[in-house]
Amino acid sequence: MRILGIDPGSNATGYGMVVSQGGKLIHVAHGVLRPPRGAGVAQRLEYLHRTVGEVIAGHAPDVAAIEQVFVDRSPRSALVLGQARGSVLAALGAAGLVVHEFNPSQVKQAVTGSGRATKDQVKRMVSRLLGIERVRASDAADALAVAIRCAHGSRLEAVGVSPAARRRRATPRVRVRVLP
Amino acid sequence: MRILGIDPGSNATGYGMVVSQGGKLIHVAHGVLRPPRGAGVAQRLEYLHRTVGEVIAGHAPDVAAIEQVFVDRSPRSALVLGQARGSVLAALGAAGLVVHEFNPSQVKQAVTGSGRATKDQVKRMVSRLLGIERVRASDAADALAVAIRCAHGSRLEAVGVSPAARRRRATPRVRVRVLP
Repeated sequence: MRILGIDPGSNATGYGMVVSQGGKLIHVAHGVLRPPRGAGVAQRLEYLHRTVGEVIAGHAPDVAAIEQVFVDRSPRSALVLGQARGSVLAALGAAGLVVHEFNPSQVKQAVTGSGRATKDQVKRMVSRLLGIERVRASDAADALAVAIRCAHGSRLEAVGVSPAARRRRATPRVRVRVLP
Repeated sequence: MRILGIDPGSNATGYGMVVSQGGKLIHVAHGVLRPPRGAGVAQRLEYLHRTVGEVIAGHAPDVAAIEQVFVDRSPRSALVLGQARGSVLAALGAAGLVVHEFNPSQVKQAVTGSGRATKDQVKRMVSRLLGIERVRASDAADALAVAIRCAHGSRLEAVGVSPAARRRRATPRVRVRVLP
């Protein structure tokens, strides 16, 4: 299972590709897409759409994973984040990918053991879990984290845990919502 | 000058094409793009991105016009609107279009003479100004209205009004902001 995690943002969109194989996680790639600073909004969003498409073409994911947005932010920043998410989601949709959405605190929980982990703790644990050098960019680390969380979800299914046991086990720790 | 007005929305995105020629406005086309209801968010946003691209390919606009968003709404609805705008703006950017953004109340003002016009008044005046049968869908009427507002703006420039006179004339009535 090839999983593309994405952490959309208008100035920096992180991505992380992992492969989940026989219960093991293998790091494939990660990076940050940064629209050109001087460009207009439409050109910046086009850049995100196009480069996410290039990442997909290069790494052929089977599924995509993204964090849910908690809209405890201002309407203005929700609009700006929404625009970045919209162009990224359109690119994922164009590739026919199913997009799984995960609760942010439960992504942290899955990676660090704490839903309140700092950005630095997420970076450290993502790097350790994947056996790679310290990931520098938070956006890329967050994208890898949501991909790892997605791999955990599908591993539960893959090992054939009964739905009831999965519910018992999964519910308190993670809430998975597949985008409708 | 071929102008594409767009009124983005997650359930219905209106578009309207007008040509401004020698001070006259000619209606070319209008319509509403409605993503399939049962589809996932990524597929719905991909639909908007793709169909806006088809409208552009079919009508070859020179510029695009869109309303500014006033974020007096909830963060949740700002996020959802942002996602629709993001996929639409990415499509406009992919076509290399410059996107002009206009203040909503001043779009109404330009079309009806009142910044507080109702949706019905906008529909009626848009249809009258373009000499077409009553436009039924509000989203399409709003898209035509912002295209008409854009045509007014560019006509001022086309007739060579001095920047100072244009500022005097334009400022109290309309605030034009080209997306940075």
